Amino acid sequence: MATFLTKPQDSNAVEEQNSKALVRFGVVGYGYWGPKVIRNLDLLEETELVAICDKSPVSRRKAEKAYPAVFVTDDANELMTSPDIDAIAVITPVWTHYELAKAALENGKHIFVEKPFTSNSAQAQELIALAAEKNLKIMVDHTFLFTAAVQKIKQLVEEGALGKLYYYDSTRVNLGLFQHDVNVIWDLAPHDLAIMDHLIQESPEAIVATGQSHVNGHEDIAFITLYFPDKVIAHINVNWMSPVKVRTTLIGGEKKMLVWNDVEPDEKVKVYDKGVNVSSREGVYNMLVNYRSGDMWAPRVEQTEALTQELAYFVDCVVNDKTPINDGKAGLRVVRMLEAASESLRQRGALVYL
Amino acid sequence: MATFLTKPQDSNAVEEQNSKALVRFGVVGYGYWGPKVIRNLDLLEETELVAICDKSPVSRRKAEKAYPAVFVTDDANELMTSPDIDAIAVITPVWTHYELAKAALENGKHIFVEKPFTSNSAQAQELIALAAEKNLKIMVDHTFLFTAAVQKIKQLVEEGALGKLYYYDSTRVNLGLFQHDVNVIWDLAPHDLAIMDHLIQESPEAIVATGQSHVNGHEDIAFITLYFPDKVIAHINVNWMSPVKVRTTLIGGEKKMLVWNDVEPDEKVKVYDKGVNVSSREGVYNMLVNYRSGDMWAPRVEQTEALTQELAYFVDCVVNDKTPINDGKAGLRVVRMLEAASESLRQRGALVYL
Amino acid sequence: MATFLTKPQDSNAVEEQNSKALVRFGVVGYGYWGPKVIRNLDLLEETELVAICDKSPVSRRKAEKAYPAVFVTDDANELMTSPDIDAIAVITPVWTHYELAKAALENGKHIFVEKPFTSNSAQAQELIALAAEKNLKIMVDHTFLFTAAVQKIKQLVEEGALGKLYYYDSTRVNLGLFQHDVNVIWDLAPHDLAIMDHLIQESPEAIVATGQSHVNGHEDIAFITLYFPDKVIAHINVNWMSPVKVRTTLIGGEKKMLVWNDVEPDEKVKVYDKGVNVSSREGVYNMLVNYRSGDMWAPRVEQTEALTQELAYFVDCVVNDKTPINDGKAGLRVVRMLEAASESLRQRGALVYL
Amino acid sequence: MATFLTKPQDSNAVEEQNSKALVRFGVVGYGYWGPKVIRNLDLLEETELVAICDKSPVSRRKAEKAYPAVFVTDDANELMTSPDIDAIAVITPVWTHYELAKAALENGKHIFVEKPFTSNSAQAQELIALAAEKNLKIMVDHTFLFTAAVQKIKQLVEEGALGKLYYYDSTRVNLGLFQHDVNVIWDLAPHDLAIMDHLIQESPEAIVATGQSHVNGHEDIAFITLYFPDKVIAHINVNWMSPVKVRTTLIGGEKKMLVWNDVEPDEKVKVYDKGVNVSSREGVYNMLVNYRSGDMWAPRVEQTEALTQELAYFVDCVVNDKTPINDGKAGLRVVRMLEAASESLRQRGALVYL
Repeated sequence: MATFLTKPQDSNAVEEQNSKALVRFGVVGYGYWGPKVIRNLDLLEETELVAICDKSPVSRRKAEKAYPAVFVTDDANELMTSPDIDAIAVITPVWTHYELAKAALENGKHIFVEKPFTSNSAQAQELIALAAEKNLKIMVDHTFLFTAAVQKIKQLVEEGALGKLYYYDSTRVNLGLFQHDVNVIWDLAPHDLAIMDHLIQESPEAIVATGQSHVNGHEDIAFITLYFPDKVIAHINVNWMSPVKVRTTLIGGEKKMLVWNDVEPDEKVKVYDKGVNVSSREGVYNMLVNYRSGDMWAPRVEQTEALTQELAYFVDCVVNDKTPINDGKAGLRVVRMLEAASESLRQRGALVYL
Repeated sequence: MATFLTKPQDSNAVEEQNSKALVRFGVVGYGYWGPKVIRNLDLLEETELVAICDKSPVSRRKAEKAYPAVFVTDDANELMTSPDIDAIAVITPVWTHYELAKAALENGKHIFVEKPFTSNSAQAQELIALAAEKNLKIMVDHTFLFTAAVQKIKQLVEEGALGKLYYYDSTRVNLGLFQHDVNVIWDLAPHDLAIMDHLIQESPEAIVATGQSHVNGHEDIAFITLYFPDKVIAHINVNWMSPVKVRTTLIGGEKKMLVWNDVEPDEKVKVYDKGVNVSSREGVYNMLVNYRSGDMWAPRVEQTEALTQELAYFVDCVVNDKTPINDGKAGLRVVRMLEAASESLRQRGALVYL
Repeated sequence: MATFLTKPQDSNAVEEQNSKALVRFGVVGYGYWGPKVIRNLDLLEETELVAICDKSPVSRRKAEKAYPAVFVTDDANELMTSPDIDAIAVITPVWTHYELAKAALENGKHIFVEKPFTSNSAQAQELIALAAEKNLKIMVDHTFLFTAAVQKIKQLVEEGALGKLYYYDSTRVNLGLFQHDVNVIWDLAPHDLAIMDHLIQESPEAIVATGQSHVNGHEDIAFITLYFPDKVIAHINVNWMSPVKVRTTLIGGEKKMLVWNDVEPDEKVKVYDKGVNVSSREGVYNMLVNYRSGDMWAPRVEQTEALTQELAYFVDCVVNDKTPINDGKAGLRVVRMLEAASESLRQRGALVYL
Repeated sequence: MATFLTKPQDSNAVEEQNSKALVRFGVVGYGYWGPKVIRNLDLLEETELVAICDKSPVSRRKAEKAYPAVFVTDDANELMTSPDIDAIAVITPVWTHYELAKAALENGKHIFVEKPFTSNSAQAQELIALAAEKNLKIMVDHTFLFTAAVQKIKQLVEEGALGKLYYYDSTRVNLGLFQHDVNVIWDLAPHDLAIMDHLIQESPEAIVATGQSHVNGHEDIAFITLYFPDKVIAHINVNWMSPVKVRTTLIGGEKKMLVWNDVEPDEKVKVYDKGVNVSSREGVYNMLVNYRSGDMWAPRVEQTEALTQELAYFVDCVVNDKTPINDGKAGLRVVRMLEAASESLRQRGALVYL
């Protein structure tokens, strides 16, 4: 992904190339995340922002002020049917994704959809089929896959540096923000599920989720266990009511173990030459478990803007007809895990097979 | 507990009072924890160490060298039947607790038993009944209850400083030590269960536990959720295969939240004036959730030796016929939770009612 | 400073009030800091950005692109002589400050000057006299005075919470950025000197500075000691060659001590109820020094943008004819300390009186 | 140093070998550090503790209680003249070192002397000459040289991993303990000076020290700069009045930089692949300073007890007639730096040549 172009510094070149924008975007949703998507689109040479849609007059006024040259509307249909738009970014609450994405695909637009992909797996499957039929791209905004930290961890896993994986254990807690329409699992866990799905490259067999709501009827604290084949286990701790912000993932392997602390400004990923050596002799009581404890190593992790990388990758996939790693199927896998977790949560921790 | 006496500095006084030792101890088990118990007994005015028992010749030689004046044997029965011993400290693997504790009680000795109390709740109940019949004391070594950090947290909970409790979330992970006879839940979680039991003062209604074994057939990573009445939820994350040592507990309440980080040398307990205010208007979508964010406060936590405090408290309970907070019933409550967690773990997360 | 207005959210109101801008700005220098100053000016209701000047064609193109409605030029004189400009922000290298500031004042403009104020104290004095004569305001950009952390510390000092001050000890180190025209003292220490000057409210009597250059002839590591009246001592450690970024200030007082760690995202200021009690008896050997060790307290520190606050305050000073706390005289005091430190450094640590 | 023997586990072997103790010790001083020295002597096979001397009756009673088999006296002369003692450990206040060490040497005993070696360099020189004449060993207790962290740093410096050294910058601050007889420089800086002397292997040319006393007439906060040949600079920040304990040393080299944080339980030494590349073109303004920023690496640092290592090394030096790295001359070098720092401090930062 290192070859994605960002706009050159020379402004003459910029003007010249702007006329060659490869993907013209309409963005639906100008709330919290929409402006960030647009600011990053704006950094890319190959894109053009054509229109913004939002239901809220306040958001529309902000959009108009920030982008005076861009068409702003409250009617998503105007974007869907515009011949000047190649791709729609759907940056709205999850319960609106299906309808908007479907309209976009039906009108021949590629889609970039905020996570989680859809409210349920049936919707996701329908959208995947529709995109396939129309030969259009779906990218689900699993932004973390494009951080340098996750890319470094992915590289370590793929190289076999960690050895056979044992576990993935993530804690993602902070104070707020309470959502009105989803619980803490649908709000925070998609990040972890998408990263885990990307790193482990296996589907979990079963899920157990527990949690509790205290304030507004949606669970504000929850714990998910995912059983994978071959004794790999994952665990995700999400909480809207923590006084401190924690973003820590432990990944244990047979050879090495790592800690990814995303709130560290530097040294986000630390790789430990630590582990367990087992030499079994006759019977359990003669089994010898030895601990290895060696150096720690914090690989340099570039300070790149993940969203810029991701949007450049979207353009690359659209223009060069590639299948994104975070395509509709990846989105579907995450939605299936969310559904199973919700089902388990409802039954206070029942094992739900996937 | 501030009034427990430790030995005075003046050595004349020491000698004089030693002759008045109120509780004469026999200690069974001189492995890892036994020497620590003995070293702390030795600091107390009111105790006398009479005999040490261990099956291992190496351990016995160490005991003889360290305490030349103390009787050392490989036969626990010699301690049980000695008229010079008032109390037996059972500092051995859990599967031996029941038999040793029973013999001690039958011989009229008070017992101080390493955690967890017994291998199952039936054993614990039998020992409790026996002690009651003989009017003897049982204390289970829930050492953490006697740390200044837990005592400070207990005080905050009791004063209502945190408000109504929402959750208790503990992470207790490190590399090793693998046990031959128990899994990571029986090894590490008794600490958290005992602390939680002490702080919450309610019994959980149901337990869900998940986990995985990778190396020697015993789970090395596990996650326990405990559902309490009134929407209180607890979660415990224990792991023998973490590259880093974490000992962090988050406790969330309606008014305040706290973080107890036991690996911090200072400022172990931080209390946050943070939380959520809800003002409901018509319907969920008009519910307003506001975040409060104020000062943080780290109360001074004394650097006391918890084990000294606990053993002094044991003497106090024996001499003054008090019921310890960590009596056999507290030990039984923890064993019941461990049993339920094991049962749930076997069923990969089934909800087990208590 | 809590009453400074920022622009209201309602855009109609914005347009209406823009016509009432109270201070019209010209900004000289569009390099690293200039764009930040402009972005913050832009947030303020009472200001209008009229013109930008920069010698570099690349910088001018960037300015034109970002602010198409603003006049951009390479000739500072156009700003100085414009009747549409009330105030000039001088955001250029220090050796250009004097000339630009003088021209601005001579043309009747108020000035906002990047730190350090000038290259030497004679220049600073001349500018102060000129401004006084013309009844114009000088504000030196000691931005840190407008951070919530420094304001909280100032409040604690003024309330007497720390008691009599003992010392101020600051470490400000990181890797880079090497400057071509100044050493690390002139680059980094103005922050500390301005903060210290603000907090201590006394002038140092003498300065000792040591340091070394390794790379380009300018000192890249240096240490400054400042002797104040009444046994107050300050120390500043600045270093361009540290592998880690440190921004830590310890402030010790008779009653309390505090640590300000500016790289912490939260809990930047920690106040310790720690100190020393002395009860002297006959002679030094009978002097009893006792240590107090109590709670730690991290007051809530707002996440405000210091530069916005500072520029709003500049407008307030101009419009309401107030003398800024960071006026030319404050700038002069810092320059005098820098001069003395340079003199001491040249003599490898000679004591230089102020 | 990895080959020094510690006592074997098998107690039969212990008894047998104890009769072959190679160095029989008398220890003068049973205050804070003396008991630690004795406890470590006790771990070594080749040593025998023969006698303990202390002026304080309380200390003598403690010694008698802890070591009933050892001769305890208030008369140092009894140790000096005993034919059963080969070496004297002088663990007393610095102003008593000279007299005690001299008596020991005159009586043909090797000496192990607490740091700093002596109160002034004349005393140190006299003792060195005396020891040379009598062919006796002097070891000054620069304990830190025997920590795994310093040994790892020494190895990195010697291998050239850091490249040419640029600076050594140490901060050693905490609350207390105020000393009655020395200031904070004589109390805390000997650690840093000894480590620095060991690592840099050059003598400083000149010293500048500043500081202030607030409480009892001795400086409680001080800052020392040491100028070495070839642009190496060192700086030491010592403070008895800091609310937090800091033990951090930055070492910058041309190739790599490191941070040694001694209060970290793990990862004490972190090596950064960071630095500066300079490519000069015509004149300063065309000099290009580029920053390198690569991986960080925390080498495994063993958890060894430095004092055990040091005392084993003392025995090795005595028995095998080796010159310790921390011999009288090393002690003298540190005392000379302390003298120069004191002289500079008296003159408020005057440059004092060595």
